[in-house]
Amino acid sequence: MSYDSTIHAKAGELIKLSYEMTAAAGSGHPTSCASLAHLVTVLMYDHMRYEPANPAHPSSDRLVLSEGHAVPVVYAACADLGVAIGKDKGNLRPMTVEDAMTLRAIDSVVDGHPNPVEGFPFFDAATGSLGQGLSVAAGLAAAAKIDALDKRVFCIIGDGESREGQIWEAVDFIKDHELKAVLPIFNCNVYAQSDVVSPQQTPETTAKKLEAAGYKALVIDGHRPGEIQAALNEHAETMSNPNAQPIAIVAKTVKGWGSASQQGDGHHGKPASGDGMAQALEELTATLNDLGAMADTKLSIKLMSPRNAETRDAIAAPSMDEALKGFGMEDVLSKGKLATRRAYGVALRALGQARADVVALDADVKNSTFAEMFSKDESLASRFLECRIAEQNMFSVAAGLSAAGKTAYTSTFAKFVARGYDQIEMAINSGANFKVVGSHAGISLAADGPSQMSLPDIAWFRSFATMTRPNGLPGCYVLQPSCAYQAYALTMAMADFDGVCYMRTLRPDMEFLYSANDTFTLGGHEVLSQGRDLLIVATGYMVHQANKALEELDKQGIDATLVDLYSIPFDSDAILDLANANNGNILTLEDNYGAGAGSAIADAASADGGGFTVQQMHVRNLPKSGRTTEDVMAYCGLSVNDIVKGAMSMLELSTA
Amino acid sequence: MSYDSTIHAKAGELIKLSYEMTAAAGSGHPTSCASLAHLVTVLMYDHMRYEPANPAHPSSDRLVLSEGHAVPVVYAACADLGVAIGKDKGNLRPMTVEDAMTLRAIDSVVDGHPNPVEGFPFFDAATGSLGQGLSVAAGLAAAAKIDALDKRVFCIIGDGESREGQIWEAVDFIKDHELKAVLPIFNCNVYAQSDVVSPQQTPETTAKKLEAAGYKALVIDGHRPGEIQAALNEHAETMSNPNAQPIAIVAKTVKGWGSASQQGDGHHGKPASGDGMAQALEELTATLNDLGAMADTKLSIKLMSPRNAETRDAIAAPSMDEALKGFGMEDVLSKGKLATRRAYGVALRALGQARADVVALDADVKNSTFAEMFSKDESLASRFLECRIAEQNMFSVAAGLSAAGKTAYTSTFAKFVARGYDQIEMAINSGANFKVVGSHAGISLAADGPSQMSLPDIAWFRSFATMTRPNGLPGCYVLQPSCAYQAYALTMAMADFDGVCYMRTLRPDMEFLYSANDTFTLGGHEVLSQGRDLLIVATGYMVHQANKALEELDKQGIDATLVDLYSIPFDSDAILDLANANNGNILTLEDNYGAGAGSAIADAASADGGGFTVQQMHVRNLPKSGRTTEDVMAYCGLSVNDIVKGAMSMLELSTA
Repeated sequence: MSYDSTIHAKAGELIKLSYEMTAAAGSGHPTSCASLAHLVTVLMYDHMRYEPANPAHPSSDRLVLSEGHAVPVVYAACADLGVAIGKDKGNLRPMTVEDAMTLRAIDSVVDGHPNPVEGFPFFDAATGSLGQGLSVAAGLAAAAKIDALDKRVFCIIGDGESREGQIWEAVDFIKDHELKAVLPIFNCNVYAQSDVVSPQQTPETTAKKLEAAGYKALVIDGHRPGEIQAALNEHAETMSNPNAQPIAIVAKTVKGWGSASQQGDGHHGKPASGDGMAQALEELTATLNDLGAMADTKLSIKLMSPRNAETRDAIAAPSMDEALKGFGMEDVLSKGKLATRRAYGVALRALGQARADVVALDADVKNSTFAEMFSKDESLASRFLECRIAEQNMFSVAAGLSAAGKTAYTSTFAKFVARGYDQIEMAINSGANFKVVGSHAGISLAADGPSQMSLPDIAWFRSFATMTRPNGLPGCYVLQPSCAYQAYALTMAMADFDGVCYMRTLRPDMEFLYSANDTFTLGGHEVLSQGRDLLIVATGYMVHQANKALEELDKQGIDATLVDLYSIPFDSDAILDLANANNGNILTLEDNYGAGAGSAIADAASADGGGFTVQQMHVRNLPKSGRTTEDVMAYCGLSVNDIVKGAMSMLELSTA
Repeated sequence: MSYDSTIHAKAGELIKLSYEMTAAAGSGHPTSCASLAHLVTVLMYDHMRYEPANPAHPSSDRLVLSEGHAVPVVYAACADLGVAIGKDKGNLRPMTVEDAMTLRAIDSVVDGHPNPVEGFPFFDAATGSLGQGLSVAAGLAAAAKIDALDKRVFCIIGDGESREGQIWEAVDFIKDHELKAVLPIFNCNVYAQSDVVSPQQTPETTAKKLEAAGYKALVIDGHRPGEIQAALNEHAETMSNPNAQPIAIVAKTVKGWGSASQQGDGHHGKPASGDGMAQALEELTATLNDLGAMADTKLSIKLMSPRNAETRDAIAAPSMDEALKGFGMEDVLSKGKLATRRAYGVALRALGQARADVVALDADVKNSTFAEMFSKDESLASRFLECRIAEQNMFSVAAGLSAAGKTAYTSTFAKFVARGYDQIEMAINSGANFKVVGSHAGISLAADGPSQMSLPDIAWFRSFATMTRPNGLPGCYVLQPSCAYQAYALTMAMADFDGVCYMRTLRPDMEFLYSANDTFTLGGHEVLSQGRDLLIVATGYMVHQANKALEELDKQGIDATLVDLYSIPFDSDAILDLANANNGNILTLEDNYGAGAGSAIADAASADGGGFTVQQMHVRNLPKSGRTTEDVMAYCGLSVNDIVKGAMSMLELSTA
């Protein structure tokens, strides 16, 4: 039993260090660590193929710790193995036990939960908001499949955590896309934070659920090295067998394994200290002795030399006019109008043809978002991932794809993007690079009613735009094109931004305001009309409403400037210069709730102290269905007439 | 076969009207309606116990149409049955076919998706963002259980929709809480929007998943009236059998049933018109004739006389000091400090004792949010619903509880509240009345790191605060107490607001700033210090940071006013008056990303045009773990020293 005794000895070391780290930090989850120690030891010291000196290489096996609070046990292994760490990707150094002991300190790379942006490249994604890791693992595996890399992706999920519906979305997704490289490992240690887990999350029920979903569930004792090894080997064998079912491990474990005084209820997230710590370690030593733990076998990591996926140089993407012609859609040019959502589809297809790193995902609405222009192109179909009606999983899959070097474009109705806000935030925390395209945004959708309208979305995404990530770039760009040409150009521009962008596309066809000769940039805006009385700043559909209002305002003797604010953040100096040229009067127009674009203008104007006046017109009531966009615009006080009245009232003129 | 022939005839009528309604609207989903026609007919004409004249009564059986896009078939039944409609709850009138034909018009109560706030009280909740209905049904059943009402709650879920993880969260929740009154009905019509459903969502796989979760799955032909009737009866029988497993129906149906030309791919969400319509109706008639459809049996609704749950008059809630003493926690008073999250627990327990309508829900963090003070009180335990780690389900359950007259308080980490933003938005759209309490918000949490910190939350919730619901109240109140007394008082105050409130509570203990004699109101603020040079507007933890900064500013000769802005929306005139008394200088402080409270102040200040200057201090970088709150405050530029510098720089003084 020398393999077993060696694993026990190493697991014991990791548990001990986990207790010490969390005690030093004054917080953390040592008992969760103890439940995982054997699984992590067998994985990281024996089964996984990777190089500690090169922990982020996309061709190596990956470990996604979905139950992120158990991270000290992985840190302990990394400290022992000298896994490379450091904020400067070009200048990593081997982790030490001293590093481990800085857990959770402000100047440490060893964060409270897995966090790759803080200098821990072993992890692909920030975890800790539960239920997301299996989707990230699926994204990593999907990228490996596209790149034909022989890679295994292990994902450890807590039993309590498996109550999150997203886990089961991922289970279905992995089966649909035959991503057998992923091995879900359920860590069934019985105790969640505030109670024992539900009977719905026992190992037996979890195994039944997995079997119902088409998996072979291997129920094992998660503290028996041989059982762990056998299960991992069975997974490795199934990867090459096209007829084999996907495998999942359901591991029965003990929270606080090895130390009786740390077991049972009331020990979640509580570091031991003083006498309690001494007792825990004493019990642990006794347990290890009883098991004959002894490091008498050499464990050697299966070094996997990094191998790069085949790459193809990007070619220049065509202009929208060229793309339309190339796709047999030249009739659009003569019509003179196109929905921005359709322009997105055209751009996505052209971009996919130009760049091999581009992958597209959609949640069963590809014929509405027009992601289907990508999926229906035979040359691109293998890079399209249909995510079905499961948005949470889609965004976390995109984060996984990003970690493997892909540039993912995700799309669904903007309203349903909200289903994945927590996942998108975790991806931003991870430094992920993918694009979110929300269609049918705002009230211009009309007939379907408020359940399909996205209205607080600008506020949420722009909140990220107010912060800067460690790479010096904004947390997010929020884009809302008013014209198909702009949507096309911005779809292209997003690909060159290393981070998350949110682009809002609209349902209605809209007349062209620009041409293929115009350029648009993240952070840009367009001046559509130069006046001197009033600066109107409009977004998306409201640019067209404003354009119509200009004519009437002109009749009333008001000479307005019109800016199409298609990006947040934007050049606030330039906007305020325009405002200054208009007596400091700014009227903002947007077809969503407040705290959005108008509020971003108010932030800039009020910070300046230059005496600007900013009146915001936005949706101020709960919308409802209307058969036409104009009906709903009027219902929400955003008709052309409302805009004229708003402008007049702002300038204190009467409409009489 | 007279029952069958009668149901066929009625189902045919409903399908025909669904085609006509969607044709009149120019949009909608007639083929989905056709797949549900028999199920809806048997339910609404034969099995359900309710009064068409009183469609919202909480004691009647309920129908939650989770796949909201199929709503015309329910409208068709309501028009035929004269179910009462109208925006004025006190003045309803029977629905007519003419009403049905106004589907989706701006002045119609017949919205594109189920929408109770627009005058359709038959529905309990807005649906249409998929995957939420079963949780709403669970909330309705949980309320019925508390009230000992014999009620059945039918929930129709699409097969494609069942990919949403939330459905499976609800499946587990219903099992955990033995809510056998809920009957999930999966409408397996094979076609989702953009494709056939995944093999993971076939009737067979869905049935296996349900069985794994402990249900008895009845797989039936959803177009055979007898099979539907038998399955519904089996459900009714199990309700009174404590040993019976919960039942779910998996109905195999045909999208576009009755009309071959409307079947297969490409018919989702497309109304028929012209020749296509004529053909569809002709085929339908032929199908009905083949089946011998004939209204030869009288169907009569099982009228259920409304019965009110027993109620108990609310008693006056105690003050926080009284509550602490009553709960044996008087030691807190001498300590002089308490975390706002703990004050929430004290208030929730006191409120629960005072008001029988109060129900509490938490997602496995009740010992962190302190909802456990409610759950551990034996007199309240039956009104506590442990939702486990499944936030989406929790918020939709709360919406269901609200529809049944309960006032639900939901709690989890503020970060994880984001998991349910789409559900919360749908609840706001539904006119639901429940409270969301997010703990450990902002960066004061420190050690756990960004995966547990809520940072764009204020922006999102305050976006709803910029709009007004049909009842004339704001879409939401955003509350962030800086002191336990405030948290206690606001927990009480929220109970009297008919709508959704979001209260942010914090991890650290904070010194008392107020006493039990102070009153706090939704929309209020507190002036903590009156100065003349600078108005500092701070929220939550930052009020304490600002308090410390005041002293240093005073040394520097700056006499600042300090406002504790604990509510959004707020009295902006009062805030601007204070700013005017401080030379128009406003410095805002918040420990979250931008677009939040500071931006709300900027909105007010810039709208006024009075020449205010608003400098916002907020989190402008991605936070990380730190062992102390002060470490993370400094890392994010929000230390006391940073505030002093910010204030000095704003007033153009040097700190030298």
